[in-house]
Amino acid sequence: MDFDTVKRLVEKEGGDYEFTVDSMPPRFIEPIVMQGLKIDHIERGLVVCSFTVPPRLLNTGNTLHGGATAALVDIVGSAVIFTMGAPTTGVSVEINVSYLSGADVGEEIEIESKALRVGKALAVVSVDFRSKKTGKLIAQGRHTKYLVLPSKM
Amino acid sequence: MDFDTVKRLVEKEGGDYEFTVDSMPPRFIEPIVMQGLKIDHIERGLVVCSFTVPPRLLNTGNTLHGGATAALVDIVGSAVIFTMGAPTTGVSVEINVSYLSGADVGEEIEIESKALRVGKALAVVSVDFRSKKTGKLIAQGRHTKYLVLPSKM
Amino acid sequence: MDFDTVKRLVEKEGGDYEFTVDSMPPRFIEPIVMQGLKIDHIERGLVVCSFTVPPRLLNTGNTLHGGATAALVDIVGSAVIFTMGAPTTGVSVEINVSYLSGADVGEEIEIESKALRVGKALAVVSVDFRSKKTGKLIAQGRHTKYLVLPSKM
Amino acid sequence: MDFDTVKRLVEKEGGDYEFTVDSMPPRFIEPIVMQGLKIDHIERGLVVCSFTVPPRLLNTGNTLHGGATAALVDIVGSAVIFTMGAPTTGVSVEINVSYLSGADVGEEIEIESKALRVGKALAVVSVDFRSKKTGKLIAQGRHTKYLVLPSKM
Repeated sequence: MDFDTVKRLVEKEGGDYEFTVDSMPPRFIEPIVMQGLKIDHIERGLVVCSFTVPPRLLNTGNTLHGGATAALVDIVGSAVIFTMGAPTTGVSVEINVSYLSGADVGEEIEIESKALRVGKALAVVSVDFRSKKTGKLIAQGRHTKYLVLPSKM
Repeated sequence: MDFDTVKRLVEKEGGDYEFTVDSMPPRFIEPIVMQGLKIDHIERGLVVCSFTVPPRLLNTGNTLHGGATAALVDIVGSAVIFTMGAPTTGVSVEINVSYLSGADVGEEIEIESKALRVGKALAVVSVDFRSKKTGKLIAQGRHTKYLVLPSKM
Repeated sequence: MDFDTVKRLVEKEGGDYEFTVDSMPPRFIEPIVMQGLKIDHIERGLVVCSFTVPPRLLNTGNTLHGGATAALVDIVGSAVIFTMGAPTTGVSVEINVSYLSGADVGEEIEIESKALRVGKALAVVSVDFRSKKTGKLIAQGRHTKYLVLPSKM
Repeated sequence: MDFDTVKRLVEKEGGDYEFTVDSMPPRFIEPIVMQGLKIDHIERGLVVCSFTVPPRLLNTGNTLHGGATAALVDIVGSAVIFTMGAPTTGVSVEINVSYLSGADVGEEIEIESKALRVGKALAVVSVDFRSKKTGKLIAQGRHTKYLVLPSKM
């Protein structure tokens, strides 16, 4: 692909949605990623959610965007830390995601997040994305957070 | 934190923006994450972008959302693969991100993506996020893609 | 720590074991890491091993060395791919490990490796390390392999 | 591959080296991985080593074992944290490695480790493995450590 095409792909200036996107309120990324998440089950160290892949979160291949999946690892992974009684939200140290199969628009998925370790300073959680219909894994991620004040990080 | 509070944090149903978010067009996640990205430099195997942290991509701590950072690793990392003449966009195999320091709203950051390896089937790129003012690293990620048709994956 | 001390820590030349180590046979790293591994259970997509932490694999803090844990993720993760009928050993694409708690010398651990995905070209497996006594997770890793000939990678 | 073959591959009991390996002294994994490492350059936040791939660290494909590479990320990554004046060795939180090309026996490689962040509690370093002859990247890893007493982790 020539450099000008790459440039056009990356720079979205002057696009149809420029005004809409630039005027979005603070922290709008969270409802955009999370809207539609439903908690089916919650207990100490475990959160299981349902989610139907919405059109807005598709990639150009028309499956759930890898960036949206990573954002869900961040968000649902943080929720499970709260169930362990962590006093603060903490800050992210590391996130990783393996993409195992695509999820199509309208597909119902289950997002299961488990606390692997929640200590005084560090928490690590895993997050599994699974197709409800086939049971197939869509993605698996891990999220490490630091729970103390960022100034002591 | 009690389970009801966690539930309210995760489930955004009935929120102020419910209608707006539900009616967003397909693939809207991309302009939401990418709008404002500017390519400063592009060559074979290297893409350097400028980006000013917008309000919409903040987390509750008012710094660049870890999920948005991961989505940018995905997107800018894919752009650099194109500069190597890869015939397809490929699919993501793995993304990881280390979060090193926070980026505030309005902060100008440099996103530098380098091809570590682009072969026939697999590409790996690194993506560095750096404060333009202080030169400090904000995040470092790696993105692995499979370049052949998903059906052969 | 001053630079000379770091240098002495890293450079093992002239140490007590220099001759012994330099004359080790090819691929000796595998028995050194694996000796003592016992398979307790094996089925398609799942391998469960027992292992007692040996003195040789300790770190300076006298718990299982993080490098040995990573090597076990590599080795036990590869074994589970074989149970899925993969025709070749493949080559490693990515390994990651989260360290969750220490394992002392003599501690009996269970290493459970599951196939998350084994396709035509790419396989991803997870590997959990758990204390047999306490049930506590010691480490969790993921291993991505490319199953086609390296020349087509 | 049938289950018995997998079992034989994993269980090294009764092998030629059983006695030798079982009688190895504590922490022998470190000289086995590190012997031959030479520091070419050291400064605050940067350590550059030379290493010639030894027969003992080969995998069955006769290139540098992925587990040995991960162990070197652990070890050389820890060395660079010391150059920043970290008071303790700390404990590993996470290690990841991307494998980019094979390194043959006798190949001279450069291992460059950089501090990405060394704070009060958390340090993150990157480690690049490169062929001295071709300049090609062999592997790239990242290592996250917690620098406070494990009891406060």
